[in-house]
Amino acid sequence: MAWRSIISREYILPERAQIFDTTLRDGEQTPGVALTKDNKIEIAKALDELGVDVIELGFPIVSKGEEEAIKEIAKENLNSKTCVLARANKLDIDKAIECGVDWVHIFIATSDIHLKHKLKMSREEVIEKATRMVEYAKDHNVTVHFSAEDSTRTDLDYLVRVFKAVEEAGADSIDIPDTVGFAVPSVIRIIVSTVKKSLKVPIAIHCHDDMGLAVANSLAAVESGAEIIHATINGIGERAGNASLEEVVVALHTLYGVRTNVRLEKIYRVSRLVEKLTGIIVPKNKAIVGENAFSHESGIHVHGVISSPQTYEPVDPERVGRRRKIILGKHSGKHSVIELARRFGVRLSDEQVEIILREIKNRGDFGHKITEIQFLEMLMYIINRCNIDRKAVIKNICLHSTEAGTIALLYLNILGEDCVLTGFGRNEIEALTNICHTLLERTPGSGLSDYKVWLAPSMKSVSESEVILYTNNNENEEVVGKGIHHSHSIAFAQALINALNQLLEKEGVRND
Amino acid sequence: MAWRSIISREYILPERAQIFDTTLRDGEQTPGVALTKDNKIEIAKALDELGVDVIELGFPIVSKGEEEAIKEIAKENLNSKTCVLARANKLDIDKAIECGVDWVHIFIATSDIHLKHKLKMSREEVIEKATRMVEYAKDHNVTVHFSAEDSTRTDLDYLVRVFKAVEEAGADSIDIPDTVGFAVPSVIRIIVSTVKKSLKVPIAIHCHDDMGLAVANSLAAVESGAEIIHATINGIGERAGNASLEEVVVALHTLYGVRTNVRLEKIYRVSRLVEKLTGIIVPKNKAIVGENAFSHESGIHVHGVISSPQTYEPVDPERVGRRRKIILGKHSGKHSVIELARRFGVRLSDEQVEIILREIKNRGDFGHKITEIQFLEMLMYIINRCNIDRKAVIKNICLHSTEAGTIALLYLNILGEDCVLTGFGRNEIEALTNICHTLLERTPGSGLSDYKVWLAPSMKSVSESEVILYTNNNENEEVVGKGIHHSHSIAFAQALINALNQLLEKEGVRND
Repeated sequence: MAWRSIISREYILPERAQIFDTTLRDGEQTPGVALTKDNKIEIAKALDELGVDVIELGFPIVSKGEEEAIKEIAKENLNSKTCVLARANKLDIDKAIECGVDWVHIFIATSDIHLKHKLKMSREEVIEKATRMVEYAKDHNVTVHFSAEDSTRTDLDYLVRVFKAVEEAGADSIDIPDTVGFAVPSVIRIIVSTVKKSLKVPIAIHCHDDMGLAVANSLAAVESGAEIIHATINGIGERAGNASLEEVVVALHTLYGVRTNVRLEKIYRVSRLVEKLTGIIVPKNKAIVGENAFSHESGIHVHGVISSPQTYEPVDPERVGRRRKIILGKHSGKHSVIELARRFGVRLSDEQVEIILREIKNRGDFGHKITEIQFLEMLMYIINRCNIDRKAVIKNICLHSTEAGTIALLYLNILGEDCVLTGFGRNEIEALTNICHTLLERTPGSGLSDYKVWLAPSMKSVSESEVILYTNNNENEEVVGKGIHHSHSIAFAQALINALNQLLEKEGVRND
Repeated sequence: MAWRSIISREYILPERAQIFDTTLRDGEQTPGVALTKDNKIEIAKALDELGVDVIELGFPIVSKGEEEAIKEIAKENLNSKTCVLARANKLDIDKAIECGVDWVHIFIATSDIHLKHKLKMSREEVIEKATRMVEYAKDHNVTVHFSAEDSTRTDLDYLVRVFKAVEEAGADSIDIPDTVGFAVPSVIRIIVSTVKKSLKVPIAIHCHDDMGLAVANSLAAVESGAEIIHATINGIGERAGNASLEEVVVALHTLYGVRTNVRLEKIYRVSRLVEKLTGIIVPKNKAIVGENAFSHESGIHVHGVISSPQTYEPVDPERVGRRRKIILGKHSGKHSVIELARRFGVRLSDEQVEIILREIKNRGDFGHKITEIQFLEMLMYIINRCNIDRKAVIKNICLHSTEAGTIALLYLNILGEDCVLTGFGRNEIEALTNICHTLLERTPGSGLSDYKVWLAPSMKSVSESEVILYTNNNENEEVVGKGIHHSHSIAFAQALINALNQLLEKEGVRND
């Protein structure tokens, strides 16, 4: 709500906006992404739970598998409206209608660049075709959403003519796509408000992020009267992607005071699911859903958030399904050390804080990160206490990989008992994951839920890889294990052991 | 230039803007990032070549290593002005002045939230301290850049009072930081234009990306009279990071018609360097510098860019040091197949195009990507020609990893000759890289320049990893090798062989 009254001095903000999710259509068009039918169904259900108003399921003409997946999702009876894409021709529209979805999204390009180089049609021919196809679709009793592709590079008078013609032909809503991610907020405001003046049907906006402006352009459209926003989870999509759903929705709720049906606290889970199934990795520094979005390292910032989280956090992390993290490194100050030690139940003297901080900064200057395990080791060394003992210890890890797959051997000591575990898989991670399942059986009710690997890309020196492993204990609390090693496979094994230790620790506490 | 005349109807745009790069200060404060002295020097030199106006080198009070790195860079006599950060106290300012840089960037928080929870000072005390410290720095003959931390949550009348006081005390420029990434463009415009009315010194803007609005907010500041923009390469920084330098600069040049000193064609190289040295991976869907920013898969888009790149590209990729890529997948159309076959010197019949396209879509429905090697294999199978023969063939790969390191064995047939190569390294990639160097010695003048690895994160099914390997031949042309496998190590070996084949192919062509 932060700025609603200030923004309202210049623009008329709606109370609510609709979210048109296109993760499964424009998002899947991300070069290199291909989802299976099961992947698409899983994502559609997650989006439905998230509370988006419309889910664009795909472009059925693209492939047989795409068509089948869409038809299966359409039968799921989701709360969200379902939609598919169709070019302005009968073949595409027939295929779309066959899918049994609620909305058909018909598009045709309207910019002179596209008319000349792609469609080889005149402006009048485009209007004629668009209206004829909208009428054709409306004759089949579907809701029609009409996009004038490349709107932002289309002559504005002509664009209004196109939209008025399709509105008369029966289109239920129109969409203004910034197809090449070329617009700026001022221009979006001019286009949307001009179109708004001539139309009665709701207006949608569809932005691409080629200049990093997709979210701002979407919000500018809302300021000028757009009521439907096209967005994708994690901002995936053609080239630099589309407007990020998570950023648009959080900005609308917290900055604009414009409500949507989206359940904010579910955003992070859906983001992780889409990351996993598409393979498009969310960078650490991504707003809302990135690993660092609620992490703090610098001394000044940690001091601030410990006193009052508001000082350096625009949104409460729990509101979007996240948790605050304090990271140790060369920018750390004494407040980080005190706070992290406190979390492990240790109170340090000023002198002890100084010693640990000096060591952390020293390691930082040599380019090293400090993991939680290493911090614990420092703590134990400094205070010479052994009650935070590690329950599981890696004695040796051995991986053997060929094109056929990987075999992993893990020599461990768990609660004093030596053991060797083996696992086979199509790669190093799968082999270790198979071991992981065996291990986690020892703590009943727990299971491996997810993981992330960051490979530090470096040619000159071998950097460290970081692995974060999410496991669930039997209370369904998330336990996060971390590992850092030159090899990501070894880091994965370390993360596994780290998570296991925490699970054993918690069980231990309960048994006391 | 696209929108300059339209934006100028509402706002007064400057002809030029200055870029204040803070990759080495706020960027290095990215949780988990730690740069060595050599890393910092290498990045500073690259930023200088890129043409940024000011380079903020760091925060000398943070650590001994930080201070030494700054002092060494200050001696390099760069064209860019150098700057360091200091809190508003004598200790920090003395340390800053000692570094021998051109600018000292003094900051103190001004929002009530920060005053109450962090500084525990009154508004008057903050003004008094700020002016006293600016005067103190000015007495030592440095250029003073003053930031009112958390400006966007500061009472606007008070903010103007603070800035007027430090201007009178001698500050050479002032900066408005959106410390928690909380502002929207309308609010930035109100703040900047209000401050602008009361001040004579240049105004800077410093935006964070917590809501995905950092770039738009920076541009809104330029619309309202800011002349200096704080930004970081790849948008790294605290939490969700800062405004991305590459996005701000490209938007200013191409959309706003506002010039900077930045050499656009060097952006991509610097982005890759920062990615490598910080370990913060650039996502595929990042504007300008992401792997997909100029990649096209969907049939409609590929058809468009082949007819005229403008149809689906807002900027010519070569202008920012990139190249256009066509990716094959389930969204591909016949134009992609024809174009890619043409690049390999093959003309296909309509029927052949259909067969290949059906196979690509079929694989896509099962979630598989199609690499260039696989496409070549399909081409060869279809047309039954052997003149695109592979020069190097992997017969077997074997990797053995422990905590101590990895040993790699590669059984190859190169130009008909069998051979076994071995390499050792601290991880799988280093072991393979060492083999790579041996291999590349066979094609004189060539060398390995860089690589990227994407690990598709997936718990349920083992996804494919993708490796891109950049090598240089003796004409210093870049050759890009690709590999896809469940294991990223094996994918890396495949990429290596693919690159080697291309190098041999080019050499072969030359020898004919």
